[in-house]
Amino acid sequence: MAHKWVYSFGNGKAEGRAEMRNLLGGKGANLAEMSSLGLPVPPGFTVTTEVCTYYYANKESYPPELKDEVETALAGVEKIVGANFGDANHPLLVSVRSGARASMPGMMDTVLNLGLNDRTVLGLAKSSGDDRFAWDSYRRFIQMYSNVVLDVGHHYFEEALELKKEDLGVHMDTELKADDWKSVVAEYKKIVEKRTGKPFPQEPREQLWGAIGAVFGSWMNQRAITYRRLHSIPESWGTAVNVQAMVFGNMGDDCATGVAFTRDPSTGTNLFYGEYLVNAQGEDVVAGIRTPQHLTVEGKKAQKSEAPAMEEVMPEVFKQLVKVRETLEKHYHDMQDIEFTVQRSKLYMLQTRNGKRTAKAALKIAVDMVHEGLIDKKEAVARIVPSSLDQLLHPTLDPKAPRKVIAKGLPASPGAASGKVVFTAEEAEKQARAGEKVILVRRETSPEDIGGMHAAEGILTSTGGMTSHAAVVARGMGKPCVAGAGDVRIDSNAGTLTVRGTTVRTGEQITLDGGTGEIMLGVVPTVQPELSGDFAELMVWADEVRKLGIRTNAETPADAAQARKFGAEGIGLCRTEHMFFEGDRIVAVRQMILADDEKSRRAALAKIQPMQRQDFVELFEIMAGLPVTIRLLDPPLHEFLPKTAEDMEEVAKDLGVEVKEIEARAHKLHEFNPMLGHRGVRLGISFPEIYEMQARAIFEAVAEVQKKHGKTVIPEIMIPLVATKKELDLMKAVVDQVAAEVSHASGEKLEYMVGTMIELPRAALRAGEIAETAEFFSFGTNDLTQTTFGLSRDDSASFLEKYQQRGIFDHDPFASLDTEGVGELIEIAAERGRKTRTGLKLGICGEHGGDPASVFFCHKAGLDYVSCSPYRVPIARLAAAQAALGGALKTE
Amino acid sequence: MAHKWVYSFGNGKAEGRAEMRNLLGGKGANLAEMSSLGLPVPPGFTVTTEVCTYYYANKESYPPELKDEVETALAGVEKIVGANFGDANHPLLVSVRSGARASMPGMMDTVLNLGLNDRTVLGLAKSSGDDRFAWDSYRRFIQMYSNVVLDVGHHYFEEALELKKEDLGVHMDTELKADDWKSVVAEYKKIVEKRTGKPFPQEPREQLWGAIGAVFGSWMNQRAITYRRLHSIPESWGTAVNVQAMVFGNMGDDCATGVAFTRDPSTGTNLFYGEYLVNAQGEDVVAGIRTPQHLTVEGKKAQKSEAPAMEEVMPEVFKQLVKVRETLEKHYHDMQDIEFTVQRSKLYMLQTRNGKRTAKAALKIAVDMVHEGLIDKKEAVARIVPSSLDQLLHPTLDPKAPRKVIAKGLPASPGAASGKVVFTAEEAEKQARAGEKVILVRRETSPEDIGGMHAAEGILTSTGGMTSHAAVVARGMGKPCVAGAGDVRIDSNAGTLTVRGTTVRTGEQITLDGGTGEIMLGVVPTVQPELSGDFAELMVWADEVRKLGIRTNAETPADAAQARKFGAEGIGLCRTEHMFFEGDRIVAVRQMILADDEKSRRAALAKIQPMQRQDFVELFEIMAGLPVTIRLLDPPLHEFLPKTAEDMEEVAKDLGVEVKEIEARAHKLHEFNPMLGHRGVRLGISFPEIYEMQARAIFEAVAEVQKKHGKTVIPEIMIPLVATKKELDLMKAVVDQVAAEVSHASGEKLEYMVGTMIELPRAALRAGEIAETAEFFSFGTNDLTQTTFGLSRDDSASFLEKYQQRGIFDHDPFASLDTEGVGELIEIAAERGRKTRTGLKLGICGEHGGDPASVFFCHKAGLDYVSCSPYRVPIARLAAAQAALGGALKTE
Repeated sequence: MAHKWVYSFGNGKAEGRAEMRNLLGGKGANLAEMSSLGLPVPPGFTVTTEVCTYYYANKESYPPELKDEVETALAGVEKIVGANFGDANHPLLVSVRSGARASMPGMMDTVLNLGLNDRTVLGLAKSSGDDRFAWDSYRRFIQMYSNVVLDVGHHYFEEALELKKEDLGVHMDTELKADDWKSVVAEYKKIVEKRTGKPFPQEPREQLWGAIGAVFGSWMNQRAITYRRLHSIPESWGTAVNVQAMVFGNMGDDCATGVAFTRDPSTGTNLFYGEYLVNAQGEDVVAGIRTPQHLTVEGKKAQKSEAPAMEEVMPEVFKQLVKVRETLEKHYHDMQDIEFTVQRSKLYMLQTRNGKRTAKAALKIAVDMVHEGLIDKKEAVARIVPSSLDQLLHPTLDPKAPRKVIAKGLPASPGAASGKVVFTAEEAEKQARAGEKVILVRRETSPEDIGGMHAAEGILTSTGGMTSHAAVVARGMGKPCVAGAGDVRIDSNAGTLTVRGTTVRTGEQITLDGGTGEIMLGVVPTVQPELSGDFAELMVWADEVRKLGIRTNAETPADAAQARKFGAEGIGLCRTEHMFFEGDRIVAVRQMILADDEKSRRAALAKIQPMQRQDFVELFEIMAGLPVTIRLLDPPLHEFLPKTAEDMEEVAKDLGVEVKEIEARAHKLHEFNPMLGHRGVRLGISFPEIYEMQARAIFEAVAEVQKKHGKTVIPEIMIPLVATKKELDLMKAVVDQVAAEVSHASGEKLEYMVGTMIELPRAALRAGEIAETAEFFSFGTNDLTQTTFGLSRDDSASFLEKYQQRGIFDHDPFASLDTEGVGELIEIAAERGRKTRTGLKLGICGEHGGDPASVFFCHKAGLDYVSCSPYRVPIARLAAAQAALGGALKTE
Repeated sequence: MAHKWVYSFGNGKAEGRAEMRNLLGGKGANLAEMSSLGLPVPPGFTVTTEVCTYYYANKESYPPELKDEVETALAGVEKIVGANFGDANHPLLVSVRSGARASMPGMMDTVLNLGLNDRTVLGLAKSSGDDRFAWDSYRRFIQMYSNVVLDVGHHYFEEALELKKEDLGVHMDTELKADDWKSVVAEYKKIVEKRTGKPFPQEPREQLWGAIGAVFGSWMNQRAITYRRLHSIPESWGTAVNVQAMVFGNMGDDCATGVAFTRDPSTGTNLFYGEYLVNAQGEDVVAGIRTPQHLTVEGKKAQKSEAPAMEEVMPEVFKQLVKVRETLEKHYHDMQDIEFTVQRSKLYMLQTRNGKRTAKAALKIAVDMVHEGLIDKKEAVARIVPSSLDQLLHPTLDPKAPRKVIAKGLPASPGAASGKVVFTAEEAEKQARAGEKVILVRRETSPEDIGGMHAAEGILTSTGGMTSHAAVVARGMGKPCVAGAGDVRIDSNAGTLTVRGTTVRTGEQITLDGGTGEIMLGVVPTVQPELSGDFAELMVWADEVRKLGIRTNAETPADAAQARKFGAEGIGLCRTEHMFFEGDRIVAVRQMILADDEKSRRAALAKIQPMQRQDFVELFEIMAGLPVTIRLLDPPLHEFLPKTAEDMEEVAKDLGVEVKEIEARAHKLHEFNPMLGHRGVRLGISFPEIYEMQARAIFEAVAEVQKKHGKTVIPEIMIPLVATKKELDLMKAVVDQVAAEVSHASGEKLEYMVGTMIELPRAALRAGEIAETAEFFSFGTNDLTQTTFGLSRDDSASFLEKYQQRGIFDHDPFASLDTEGVGELIEIAAERGRKTRTGLKLGICGEHGGDPASVFFCHKAGLDYVSCSPYRVPIARLAAAQAALGGALKTE
């Protein structure tokens, strides 16, 4: 056989395995795996992702062998179920579901009850002994199939049903009898014929192929494309299609359907956690239309719910489910997200997959599983998504701050968020683009809202449970979410949400606490996060394996101290210009800029020097012997001048000069492309006295701290924007000279390194030569990205989005390192630099230092350390550990 | 012997050879060569350039062996001359002169008459039989030595001499008698003792070492450093020192000194050309103090001089000199610049070197020498300095234009120049920096004026001959110069030049014609140069050997036509944006920019399209089948919007919109770093309709021209600023689509290529991938230099000069390609691109395409062609030929 396109499962056997998710999709692979484990899985088969690839590569056609393979697999299902597809007496019904390699919840299409037609509906009535159920199933099928496959809008069917109910004088679907549904079916078929020009297809095989085609087609719908872009899922992966014998959770009160997590996905607690609905189909739970009941008594109590738990209602089935839970966790060594259906008291497993979880839960589950002996430490480290830690590393609501709680919902996704209330996804996106922080408030969310959810700081819904669309997606995005806040009345037309007399209008601020479910008026202040408990424990394990050092970009004592708490092993980038803007010194800095000769420049610099020295004293004391890399002045001088006429006047007054003088200097210093202008080492070449002052401040601080603490401080002095060896030579001479003078004057022995940023393509190419002088390199990947791409970070926002939409960029190259272009320059520089100077210290200090994928690259490129913002230090530690483990970067 | 530091010559023999100029300097090597040829060279020896290198590498000390080697060489000279150094009766006197690898006229120090002291002056008086001559020589020696070696200012001596003359009641030096000079010598010695605290050194060996040290020291004087920077002479070369027996041209009327060129250095005519002064020392000719006489009767007549020619005054010596001329040209196969002295009717050769010449002369000499059988065509091609052709490729005065000639001087350096009159070098530099064109007017120029001469458009002097400082330096620089305009009275304090009643003030315009010596009032219009005669002949020879194609950067019919006349083989860069600024179309362009949606944008583009099509029709017709590379729109759209409030108002009126609207759009389009902004292919991605319109205009023009002329036109369509393959893919799809449409509509078969600029480091690195789509690469080295260095061409002027002064840049990287950094990216791209696509067409289209050194690089990098401005096409042709010959680039 040239190629196998279809994989069967069922009856304790399967052709596929969990490892085959690339071929079978996540759902198909796990159905096969569960089937092999002997779990009660309705039989079925998976049409592989390769068929999807073939489909799009061959003008939406199928491989010629596919038809036969599907027939064979279908026959196998018929045999196991003991029912035949299209059989008038005992018809086999199937579901047709998508299943991609990565989970894309709600993004693609599903068809249930497939196989029903005017004849088989009678067979279903007979075999189920329930006429009403049969006709209800048929009308559901017609609506779903017509919508998904034939593109007939839902509303046509909904309107017809409403009219029917009016005719009958009833309000609830449940009041309709078998005959009523029968006439609804007739009505539905007319709608289909009117809208499509053809009768509703009666041939089950035609139905099947229509549904398969619709699932493959949905791989390219707009929602799916957007989702893939947001989650970096390649289009080339494709989706599989799962065809599976139907089981029914809606055949009566001994039926049910539910979803569960083997542990709490929000906190990670080792408790069975789930929801179910009696007499319902699976979609009803996920859609959030009816508020579901808890699986366990404990869960019910915890959420103060009145509705009975499954543990109470169906104790036998529940026991089976608990066993399934154990089997799955032991088999998969991970928390599982499962779907099940109970048909006439018999349990069927419809899905299992590794459960999405909050970062906090992920940490707890990983650490607990190590303690339980289920996994080892390395596995725990490998399992946490580094970027997800971001959720835990940002401020949470200050427990001491006053808060006006107006309502409480489900704590669906943790974290605190404040923002202006908006009621539509479009508005959320629009406001966010304008720089506003918004909270998206919806009755419930649907896949169409993805863009708005992404743009919002947090999400609030008034219906739906912990596994509703809003909750699942928000957790995936790491956005705070409060779901199912039933007290909240939302009137999106009026632009209000109301809770017992309190009304919040569009544009007013609210705060959500996704960890407690609280909804508060206004903006509640936040406090800094700490690294403790499971998080701290896992970080220790990460540190045991990683090879890369992790430093921080910091210039203030507060940032430096925070970074140390997060485990930074030194400062990789101290931007001295930030120190120039503070308080009095900006006055002296401006005097320096206005100076017409070296003498007046030196006079102004002399005023700045003691303040700058004090900055370094504090940093050296906080970093207590850890390396501190100090970059000498980098930005063009005009950045320090006032911009508006008003500010200029004020500054002129401060400095006692004419406004004209400041304008003239600003005019003289104006640059067309400041990014490529008179900055970095170019300032040092033009005005060596500036770098001289900075070097003096550094060395005097070193001498002071050494004297006070009796410990050697070894600053790493970094010259920015070097393009040639000679620039560095000239500046190193200035630094060496000052060091000798300060050493002489203070009597302290001074150790230090002089190195350079590699942030220009030329510097990367000439690294061999530059390393003759430089004792270390620090890759300034922000500027290196700008120059390598010829792309200004400040100006590219207007077209970067289009670049991502059109598939030119997989990701924003300023957020995650372009390993092909910028990365090659880094590799070239590393190789050439180390060829000249064995053991040359190499680091990176752009924004990329805190991006996990970029950290992976740095590990592979053999750098010594990465440096990132304090809040990203733990992320970098974890990413570095995963890189050292040799596997792939863990992403959601 | 470990190392030889000193090379002797004289008496028909020599240790050195002409080829040893790196070691012996130009002067030393040629003195040795002439000596070996049996020409009458006063004996001497050369202290090598390696001693200079040693001197600076070893704290200004000498190799230990040097002293003995100098003694040995000196003894050799004593033997040949039959006189001894320091001998009281028959003293040997020597000159000590610098001599670097490259000629640096007047930049370094010289000491003559060395060996005189209170005793030897008596011996000189005796041996010469001329007391007055001996004491005059001694006082000259004291003044020169004290100035050069002991740093005592000239003016002390000059003042003393003036006082002496007042005392004696005389006006001219010639009126002083032997005893008078004797008392002047006494006075001079007092001055030296007073100024230096020590008596004038009497010991000849101390004098000798003092002079040698001073010559080495002068390698690092400011003038020499400036000269080296302007002429790209590396500091590391160092200078040699030549010590040579003195001969005297000032011992009486049977003595003379002169300089000559074996052919006319201004026109290249094969006539002996030179000047001499009777009873004078060599320095007197060069300094321009006395106006010298002609060598030949023909020369005298041509310049309408009254003073007798050497041919008439010293016919015997002149005959010897003519023989020397023949010997040297036959030996060196090149025009020589010689210095000679006649001492008591005996001819001595003091120097020969390849003569500096105008570009015109260089061409004529090279072409003549080929016809004379002295050199072959390749040698002729190799011998012309490509950059020097610039002089011939610029407009000359329109012969039909009215001109008001106010005076005439010597045609010292050809070319026409107009500008504002300035009287000091400082003012020339200052005005030039401010963008003014100036003519530097001086009585005579000196090495201190170099900077101002460089800054000026042309130079005018009122004294000095064709070999004066002004004339020699101006020719070297390719600046027009009129020298020795004796009718012109210069009062630099008053800021006026006056010629017989006509007064020109500082800041008023004059025009110089360096080819005729005419000085005109105001600005005289110019005409375009043509390529004919010797120039055209040499270009044909160049084309026979070169491998690189030469194209031009042109978008106007005028430029395209001019470039073809200069031999361009196609257009390498047609910048379509230049076409957008013209006439009516700028209105439509602005409408397009103000458009809010694609539809209005397309409406505006539809207006531009027919005009753009007509542009291309004209270009295709002019280029008649030669390739035309058209770059689609590149600059950011805000460049097309008005900048000032006034212009905005006007444009608003033109377009019938509110000023506010234009301001708003300008604000929206504002960029912090436009160079790195929304431009190039990024515009094409955002607004494909722009590139679509351009492609349509191109293809419709192709169809039209093909129909009209029945010949295939193959445009090369170039997408700018590509960083990724995908960008090019998307734009190529647009171009291909339009081509198919136009082909269908017109019924013409369309052949074309789609390629890309490689002007971003990333594009160079990803060239392998980009070449999958690109059918050609054109290196945009302007932008590639900007991004590789992170250096804005518009903003770097403020510090680039300092960068050259401090030795960071050897040359402006925007003028001549940085082969190490930018060059490596070009090599990488060429290699990777051709690996993907064998025979990928590669060219360069930055400013560098017309820079000879960059052309050399492009040849070595294996590019197919360079493209440059029309006026640089012949320069590029010649440079390409020299590159193909495999030698070094010919520079002055």
